[in-house]
Amino acid sequence: MNTLLAKEMILSYLKEDVGTGDLSTDLVFGRELRGTGVFLAKDDGIISGTELIALTYSLYTNDVKVTLYKHDGDRVQKGEDIAKVEGPVYVLLTCERIILNLMQLMSGIATAARRMVDALDDPSIRIVDTRKTHPGLRMFEKYAVTCGGAFNHRFALYDGVMLKDNHIAFAGGIEKAVALVRGKLGHMVKIEVETETEEQVKQAVKAGADVIMFDNRTPDEIKHLVTLVPEHIITEASGGITLQSINTFKGCGVDYISSGSITNGAKPLDISFNSTEGIKP
Amino acid sequence: MNTLLAKEMILSYLKEDVGTGDLSTDLVFGRELRGTGVFLAKDDGIISGTELIALTYSLYTNDVKVTLYKHDGDRVQKGEDIAKVEGPVYVLLTCERIILNLMQLMSGIATAARRMVDALDDPSIRIVDTRKTHPGLRMFEKYAVTCGGAFNHRFALYDGVMLKDNHIAFAGGIEKAVALVRGKLGHMVKIEVETETEEQVKQAVKAGADVIMFDNRTPDEIKHLVTLVPEHIITEASGGITLQSINTFKGCGVDYISSGSITNGAKPLDISFNSTEGIKP
Amino acid sequence: MNTLLAKEMILSYLKEDVGTGDLSTDLVFGRELRGTGVFLAKDDGIISGTELIALTYSLYTNDVKVTLYKHDGDRVQKGEDIAKVEGPVYVLLTCERIILNLMQLMSGIATAARRMVDALDDPSIRIVDTRKTHPGLRMFEKYAVTCGGAFNHRFALYDGVMLKDNHIAFAGGIEKAVALVRGKLGHMVKIEVETETEEQVKQAVKAGADVIMFDNRTPDEIKHLVTLVPEHIITEASGGITLQSINTFKGCGVDYISSGSITNGAKPLDISFNSTEGIKP
Amino acid sequence: MNTLLAKEMILSYLKEDVGTGDLSTDLVFGRELRGTGVFLAKDDGIISGTELIALTYSLYTNDVKVTLYKHDGDRVQKGEDIAKVEGPVYVLLTCERIILNLMQLMSGIATAARRMVDALDDPSIRIVDTRKTHPGLRMFEKYAVTCGGAFNHRFALYDGVMLKDNHIAFAGGIEKAVALVRGKLGHMVKIEVETETEEQVKQAVKAGADVIMFDNRTPDEIKHLVTLVPEHIITEASGGITLQSINTFKGCGVDYISSGSITNGAKPLDISFNSTEGIKP
Amino acid sequence: MNTLLAKEMILSYLKEDVGTGDLSTDLVFGRELRGTGVFLAKDDGIISGTELIALTYSLYTNDVKVTLYKHDGDRVQKGEDIAKVEGPVYVLLTCERIILNLMQLMSGIATAARRMVDALDDPSIRIVDTRKTHPGLRMFEKYAVTCGGAFNHRFALYDGVMLKDNHIAFAGGIEKAVALVRGKLGHMVKIEVETETEEQVKQAVKAGADVIMFDNRTPDEIKHLVTLVPEHIITEASGGITLQSINTFKGCGVDYISSGSITNGAKPLDISFNSTEGIKP
Amino acid sequence: MNTLLAKEMILSYLKEDVGTGDLSTDLVFGRELRGTGVFLAKDDGIISGTELIALTYSLYTNDVKVTLYKHDGDRVQKGEDIAKVEGPVYVLLTCERIILNLMQLMSGIATAARRMVDALDDPSIRIVDTRKTHPGLRMFEKYAVTCGGAFNHRFALYDGVMLKDNHIAFAGGIEKAVALVRGKLGHMVKIEVETETEEQVKQAVKAGADVIMFDNRTPDEIKHLVTLVPEHIITEASGGITLQSINTFKGCGVDYISSGSITNGAKPLDISFNSTEGIKP
Repeated sequence: MNTLLAKEMILSYLKEDVGTGDLSTDLVFGRELRGTGVFLAKDDGIISGTELIALTYSLYTNDVKVTLYKHDGDRVQKGEDIAKVEGPVYVLLTCERIILNLMQLMSGIATAARRMVDALDDPSIRIVDTRKTHPGLRMFEKYAVTCGGAFNHRFALYDGVMLKDNHIAFAGGIEKAVALVRGKLGHMVKIEVETETEEQVKQAVKAGADVIMFDNRTPDEIKHLVTLVPEHIITEASGGITLQSINTFKGCGVDYISSGSITNGAKPLDISFNSTEGIKP
Repeated sequence: MNTLLAKEMILSYLKEDVGTGDLSTDLVFGRELRGTGVFLAKDDGIISGTELIALTYSLYTNDVKVTLYKHDGDRVQKGEDIAKVEGPVYVLLTCERIILNLMQLMSGIATAARRMVDALDDPSIRIVDTRKTHPGLRMFEKYAVTCGGAFNHRFALYDGVMLKDNHIAFAGGIEKAVALVRGKLGHMVKIEVETETEEQVKQAVKAGADVIMFDNRTPDEIKHLVTLVPEHIITEASGGITLQSINTFKGCGVDYISSGSITNGAKPLDISFNSTEGIKP
Repeated sequence: MNTLLAKEMILSYLKEDVGTGDLSTDLVFGRELRGTGVFLAKDDGIISGTELIALTYSLYTNDVKVTLYKHDGDRVQKGEDIAKVEGPVYVLLTCERIILNLMQLMSGIATAARRMVDALDDPSIRIVDTRKTHPGLRMFEKYAVTCGGAFNHRFALYDGVMLKDNHIAFAGGIEKAVALVRGKLGHMVKIEVETETEEQVKQAVKAGADVIMFDNRTPDEIKHLVTLVPEHIITEASGGITLQSINTFKGCGVDYISSGSITNGAKPLDISFNSTEGIKP
Repeated sequence: MNTLLAKEMILSYLKEDVGTGDLSTDLVFGRELRGTGVFLAKDDGIISGTELIALTYSLYTNDVKVTLYKHDGDRVQKGEDIAKVEGPVYVLLTCERIILNLMQLMSGIATAARRMVDALDDPSIRIVDTRKTHPGLRMFEKYAVTCGGAFNHRFALYDGVMLKDNHIAFAGGIEKAVALVRGKLGHMVKIEVETETEEQVKQAVKAGADVIMFDNRTPDEIKHLVTLVPEHIITEASGGITLQSINTFKGCGVDYISSGSITNGAKPLDISFNSTEGIKP
Repeated sequence: MNTLLAKEMILSYLKEDVGTGDLSTDLVFGRELRGTGVFLAKDDGIISGTELIALTYSLYTNDVKVTLYKHDGDRVQKGEDIAKVEGPVYVLLTCERIILNLMQLMSGIATAARRMVDALDDPSIRIVDTRKTHPGLRMFEKYAVTCGGAFNHRFALYDGVMLKDNHIAFAGGIEKAVALVRGKLGHMVKIEVETETEEQVKQAVKAGADVIMFDNRTPDEIKHLVTLVPEHIITEASGGITLQSINTFKGCGVDYISSGSITNGAKPLDISFNSTEGIKP
Repeated sequence: MNTLLAKEMILSYLKEDVGTGDLSTDLVFGRELRGTGVFLAKDDGIISGTELIALTYSLYTNDVKVTLYKHDGDRVQKGEDIAKVEGPVYVLLTCERIILNLMQLMSGIATAARRMVDALDDPSIRIVDTRKTHPGLRMFEKYAVTCGGAFNHRFALYDGVMLKDNHIAFAGGIEKAVALVRGKLGHMVKIEVETETEEQVKQAVKAGADVIMFDNRTPDEIKHLVTLVPEHIITEASGGITLQSINTFKGCGVDYISSGSITNGAKPLDISFNSTEGIKP
């Protein structure tokens, strides 16, 4: 994660929520009052986004002290403290919802990723994410995926080639499609080919794909297909694999399983902010 | 929804996903090839975000024709077409994921909102959202809420006052807190007071709050509390009310029920894009 | 006022005035030379914008010390010092005009607001501003209005509804217009109705408007109209009311008087910057 | 004026005023309804900013037809139409205030400039503006100055050198200051020297200043001072010269008179927008 | 190349060069006058950037007609026309230098790339660029490289891993470094290892690097080193290889040669713009 | 140079190169490890851009200590240290290439400028740059020109008028063109006229141009032409003058020689960054 970019994005979130001013806070509290608060897990899961707490406050002031009790990737249990913060009350309250919204989203994704990894229960297969992320939030969500023990697929359209049915049909087959792309592409970018049949898998091997995806195949089919692929080519299973079904893929021999459900519709982890001390007239 | 702002935000999403170029599309398809595609519902729900299809393409070209079969707020059933599009293939494919990610999110929220409204089954009570939205996406999410038949709470910190325990404690009580804010606030902004006891409800009435929120109260408690509030003051129930519990609030007499669950963790509606025609070598 | 937003706006002003460099300052003074300066009132009025002095310098360096002798809302008299500053000469001189232009504008508005309040001489009526502000400067100008003892009307088109003749005509009357809007609007947003006749006032009351504006009515007419409006509905007089005429509205019984003249054409308060010490070869 | 920059600035103004949506317009009018409107002068003056009408609408749609009856620099009289517009009602109403605020400001400045020129009544002397403009609005205001028949001083700190008492004191005198700057400055940038005494004028001549400013001098003093300056050096009178005093400078022989009052505190020209046709249910 | 991003970048260049207005053009030509112009090669080379001509004008107007005689990647000879343009004179002249500066830079790079390819004269080895590009211009420069028949190395720090001496030393050797990175990295990103000795090459092979770079090795040394690397691992020669020395690498057996000199210090291709027609009073 | 603007531009460069994260650095080094590095000249030349080293790091952290051994404008010799830096390793490595790319470019330009000045060997004539700069980098490049002892021509289209053949033809001759512009232009902006014949030089003198350019004339022709121009008008020679030919202009009597070759195609000065200490596991 690039903290420069994170800072810029959080600034835009603060502008969305605070706009021309936090009326409630500005009208009640002065700028001088200091207080403390605690970020608290209200459910079990994996935490992600803790470094963004201090980063968010820093946009307003350098005068908030953040003590982290949990770090990104740590398991938290309902009722556990995640962080304690101390600083100007107006900063703590104005930034509260942005931090919660972001940390709940990220921790929810980390938790979903971890659950997938645990449910699969096969260290020889890695879980990877997809591009099914919330618009504008991909860097945070892809980072959260790694906090949960899963891995990142290509980040975006610019850093990896994925040849799907459209590309293949237009190019006139897998070998022609790969050759067409390889003829123009830099050597640091990988080419993945989506396959739907055994024949296509063979073509992809022949074409010299870097990664071969088995789309919507059963674990048993995959067990067979992987035998067709030489070791230096990576294999990936994809297509509607969720927390419910993933364990059936245990031992199927594929290298990677990608699942949109880690980021797309992961339940946010419930986290609250309690600011009880230091607030008296 | 302000389309100027929508355009600017979608531009930023395209920059996130396309960056310096869509390698797969740029290397396979020329700029000249035209094709068609269809956005298709893969689950039942309420659709939202259809106007953003054309808006997204327009950032690249004015040369895409969009035909909408469903409009925002319409019910869709699994298998139904939402829109047909026709234009340059590289534009259709490069924009595909952004449109899907955004429309799935928005339609998921619209669907969640509609389910809450239907489950409550009490037209005298309105469902409203909260500020628990994905950072950067609030305008789209708040709009989606209305597509599902629910309503918007304050948009952000700048357009409504919400006095919570912290503000009340610091000001020295509800009456003092309301008076303090009213003494500085413009007359077009409403003041809502969060209450936790019957005594606080009475104080809020006396203080002249515009809206009184009953926090974490049972339907029966609310039936009593609303009798304490004169008609021109709006009442709102809040606190952990979800699709599962909302029907128990039917007939409780409150004016509004707010629920973070409409936006926070709503399941995205499954939508796909099929671009089968016009793609041949 | 949101200081994050203020910082961003002042940065844009510095880019407008300094651009690729302050030629005079860069070519004469080194970066090392330190000096002092004083912001000085050259006319009587109410001061506003003092916190922006330090905020402006902070964009260049944290190395300027600002001592405020006057705070926002304070009365100043011709010849009085407002603030003393000490820091790198090139920062003091490069930022000089931006600070002056902004503080003169804001203090001029605060002064105009204060004069309206004093001229009205009726604490039961509040003076409010309008949307007649300088493009891009609204947050600063609305804040300055409050420094002068007046209040803010809706901030913009997004945080309040104002139903004017066009809306009413299109909807088919005031009751229909209010019902139409109320049927879609969130409960935290107020609806104001502009009225031109007694009949319209009665309709607005019946329609349940939150605020009723009497447009272009004499004080005597208003005295009568307010008797038609129940207490929990706010009344507002508007239309060409200026410093010259406002005292005639004393005691007319309206709750608010809005006047564009506070922000639109307020005379800037004359303020100068003297940097006499520390500048020798 | 750079229309690219103008467009970008107007976009920022629309974001300030419309934000997440124009509630009143969005909730009452559909996107389909078309209507017409007229921009109307409500006072006598010089008009400026007419080209920004179409530019503003163009940010929303290309579907508004603008017919200009007056062009920038034209005199208007109270009651005269400035422009007629026809297009989607929601665009006309949403953009109304931004266009009015900007055109009133610019026309007010053009009118103030024209009044100065007329009051001076000496075609051998040109009136020029200063950097006393509203932050963020300088390009529009400097342009408006020229619509009123006056001229632009340096635009900002980056396109002209002005040596004031501080610079001169630090450099050790006018000749040293000019030599210091000339030794580093490009040949396309002019150097102006502020003078307060006859001795300083002589030094500035000797130093080879491009422009010599007589600060706070009477017309009679100026008549003498201009005799000390060779023809190829430009002379400028400055310091508190306003509409009231400017005629006394007629015939004083100076080349330019600069006055902050053209932009700083010019009364906005009253302009209204009437949208009577096409608005019915 | 992403045209959305290209547009945004060219907008920033126009703001740099035009700022608040093109004084010469604005003061001499009206907005109505139309004219024609021709972009003309003044030296031999490979052209790149022709699509940016129309893109640049489109920021001002859709009213310029561009006829391309040469397309990206074409060879041009001194005296040949590249494109003819017809439109408003003020747009043609205001955009002239931006288009020239950009197209000269890009064509210079394309020409340098082509010369390297021709000088190497070995189709089994591909020339690739580096990250030695002009800050802010990388997308244009990397695209230009491909116009000249060379290829792109990783685009930036985010889309490829390069393990250099620092990383290797810190990790405790090549195998540990690769294992460390592979243990966290997504499967779509390649790992390149910089090697300086034969021993390191062997370690990199064993570590399973995707790409092995031979840093600063002679063609003869490379001939030997490539024999140590299995076919599915890509080899790359790097380090001070320029147009003068590249032919000595012909037949050395490496897969790729990277050279910073293609982008870093490539001589701009001389191109001029002649606008002779249509300009008369 | 405006450091505010410099900061903003460097931020954009970091976003271009780092994007969503520096994979190699993030995966190998922790955030805690500190180290040192040295910027080292690998060729002889003039250094420029040293202040940007600290500015770049400051975007990430205030925790890097920069010790400059050379300052802007200093001569460096191959092998000499330019600066030593000490701070977090991830910051040093992530910023390395941006700093090198920018400092090599700027130092290359400073070196080219200095070589022109030395080759001309005539202190009565100043070398000036042109607008032939890399898009987006002009402020840095114009600054570098001054580090090499040359001067800046107009910065852009907004701060100087240059009347070329097109303008002159359209206006109907040099005198008419100058009169047309002078009739609208502010007095702080200079007018330069490009001349191609002796007749045109005479016309430009008569027209009162501020600067007269002799386009594509030999040194002998210039010797004659300068005798036609009175002393207070500046003369400039231009047109294809390079390092090879410039010495022939020694003693020709012109005031300025402009040359695009200083910025356009200057060879970057070779600089490297060595980070040897502090990097161990």
